[in-house]
Amino acid sequence: MTSDSGGTLQDVGEFGLIDRIVDRAAIDASALVLVGPGDDTAVVSASDGRVVVTCDVLVEGTHFRRDWSTAIEVGRKAAAASLADVAAMGAVPTSLVVGFGAPGDLPTTWAVSCAAGLREEAATVGALLVGGDVVSAPQVIISVTALGDLEGREPVLRSGAAVGDVVAIAGRFGWAAAGLALLSRGFRSPKVLVDAHRFPQPPYAAGPAAARCGATSMIDVSDGLLADARHLADASGVVLEIDTAGWEIPEPMQSAAAAYNVDAKDWMLTGGDDHALLATFPTTEAVPEGFVVIGRVALGDPGVVVDGLLRDAAGGHRHFT
Amino acid sequence: MTSDSGGTLQDVGEFGLIDRIVDRAAIDASALVLVGPGDDTAVVSASDGRVVVTCDVLVEGTHFRRDWSTAIEVGRKAAAASLADVAAMGAVPTSLVVGFGAPGDLPTTWAVSCAAGLREEAATVGALLVGGDVVSAPQVIISVTALGDLEGREPVLRSGAAVGDVVAIAGRFGWAAAGLALLSRGFRSPKVLVDAHRFPQPPYAAGPAAARCGATSMIDVSDGLLADARHLADASGVVLEIDTAGWEIPEPMQSAAAAYNVDAKDWMLTGGDDHALLATFPTTEAVPEGFVVIGRVALGDPGVVVDGLLRDAAGGHRHFT
Repeated sequence: MTSDSGGTLQDVGEFGLIDRIVDRAAIDASALVLVGPGDDTAVVSASDGRVVVTCDVLVEGTHFRRDWSTAIEVGRKAAAASLADVAAMGAVPTSLVVGFGAPGDLPTTWAVSCAAGLREEAATVGALLVGGDVVSAPQVIISVTALGDLEGREPVLRSGAAVGDVVAIAGRFGWAAAGLALLSRGFRSPKVLVDAHRFPQPPYAAGPAAARCGATSMIDVSDGLLADARHLADASGVVLEIDTAGWEIPEPMQSAAAAYNVDAKDWMLTGGDDHALLATFPTTEAVPEGFVVIGRVALGDPGVVVDGLLRDAAGGHRHFT
Repeated sequence: MTSDSGGTLQDVGEFGLIDRIVDRAAIDASALVLVGPGDDTAVVSASDGRVVVTCDVLVEGTHFRRDWSTAIEVGRKAAAASLADVAAMGAVPTSLVVGFGAPGDLPTTWAVSCAAGLREEAATVGALLVGGDVVSAPQVIISVTALGDLEGREPVLRSGAAVGDVVAIAGRFGWAAAGLALLSRGFRSPKVLVDAHRFPQPPYAAGPAAARCGATSMIDVSDGLLADARHLADASGVVLEIDTAGWEIPEPMQSAAAAYNVDAKDWMLTGGDDHALLATFPTTEAVPEGFVVIGRVALGDPGVVVDGLLRDAAGGHRHFT
C-alpha cells in the first residue's frame, strides 16, 4: 500500500488504486494465499478439497448512502454480507475477491477507506482480500465474493431441519432495522442502533460452532427473521414454530421503539441486515454457547408460526418489488 | 428453470429470476458441484487442495451497450473475461458465481438470456454457474467470479519469463478492436469482426496446454498486446522483443483496415478484449500447438520493444483516465 491517497480515481487510475488497496505484508505472511493480487488470478488454499463460495452485491442508493455511512462502514457491511453466508454453512472464511465500480470523480480516499473496511471485516475472521477488479461506473458498486473452508465437515444446509429439532438464533437481530428507522427520521442516535445499520456484527464463530455441535440446518438472517425462517422451512419441508413470549428486548431498542410507538418485536421479526445465524439442533443440549433457543420444528405445510399464528414473510427485504 | 419469462424484473422479483436462471439438471449431474444454488453458499470441488479465483465486472455503458449487443452476447463476454484469467494461470475453470444488478424495468427475458450466455460460455470449458446475487441497480452490472482447478500443476505467473525465452501468443488479437471501430462508425459488418467485439472467443484450452509444456510466464491479453506484454515484462523484470514483420493480417481485418485507412497492426498491438493468451517458453520446441511465436525475451530495463523500437502501452484500455 502506498500512503498518498489524494485526488480522485481519475487521477490515480485503476492500477494506482490497486496499489493503494492491497496489503502485501498480510498476504505474504499468510499460508492460505498461495498467489496474491497482481497476477491474472489469486490462488487460495482449499485444504479439504472443497471450497465454499458466495457473492453479495451492494449498490449505492439501494444498500447504502454515502451521507449516512463512512467508506469504512460500507466496506465492512459489504464484506459482512458474504462472510456471514460462509459462516451459515458452518465454514470458516478464507478470502475475498471484490469487484469495485465507481465514478471517476470519487475521492481516492473513499475507495481506499472502503477497501480498508473490507480488509478489516475479513481480518476479524482471519480472511484476506486477495484480488478483484476496479471499473468505472455511474455509482459505487461493491460485489464481494467470499471463499471459505469447511475444515472437513459437511456443510450445514437449509434443508436439514427435522420435526422435533429446536430452533435457535445467534447474534443480534432487529438492530439494523431500528437504526435505519432512526436514520430515516433524521436521527443519529442511539449510536449503537445507528451503527448496527451502518455495518453489522455477525456472529461468525457461531457458524462453525453450530456445525461442530451437529446443527441440522442453518441460514444467514439477511432478509429478516420471518423471511429467512420461511426459506429454511421451505427447504426442509417443515413448520418453524417461534415463541416470542420470553424475548427480552435489549436496550436501547426498547426505548427507541417506545419513542416511535413501534413494537420492537416487529423490528426483530422483519428487520434484515444484522446477519444473525438461525439454526436447528436435534436437542436443546446440543445448542452451543452463543445461540438462544427461540422455538421448535413441527410437522405441517412449510411455514413459520409465531406465538401460535401462521405468519407470512412480509416485511423482509425484497429486490425489484 | 421455469419457462415463463414475461414481464420485467419488478414483476418476477429476485427469487423468481433466480428460478429462471439456474440450470438444476446440469448442476445435479456435475461431480464438481457439491452444493448448488439455493443455499447460503455453493460448495465446489477443489481437487488438488487449491482454488484459482478471479473477478471481472462489466458495467452497461462502459463495457457494453444493450443496443450493440444481445443479452446472450453480454453474458458470454462477461463470463469470458473471468474464464480467460483462469486459463492464463494454466488452470481449468470449474465454476462461476455472478453478481447481477439491473433496473426493475429491465425485461425479464434480457436477464434470463444474459444468464444463458454466462452458462453457455462456461459450458464451453465444462464450468457451471453455481450461485450469485441479484440486486436492484440503475444500470446493468455483471460481476463474474470464476473459480478454477490447477490439476496439481504450479500456476503460471506473470513473473517467470527469463532472458532467452521465446514469446508466443494463442488466439485472436485485434479483432474486437476492429469490430468496435466498425460499430462506432455505424457499421454492422463484416459480421465476424463485429461479433468479436460483442463476445470474444478466448483460446481457453491453450492455457493448461501451455502450463503442461513448461510455459515460464503467461497473461490474458485483455488490455491490448502492448499493455499486457508490458505487465508481463514488468513482473518478470525483462524486455519483451516482438517482431511484427512476419505477421499475416487475417481477413477481413486487412480489408476493414484498408477501408478506414488504419494500420491493422495498431488494432493487433493495442486492441483489448479478445482475451488472447500471451506466454513465454524456454525453447521454440516447447511451444504447444495453438501458439504462434512472435518474439523473444531479452535483458534490459523492463519494457516492450516492437520491431526494434521501445513502445509504451498507449492505446491499452485504462479505466478512470
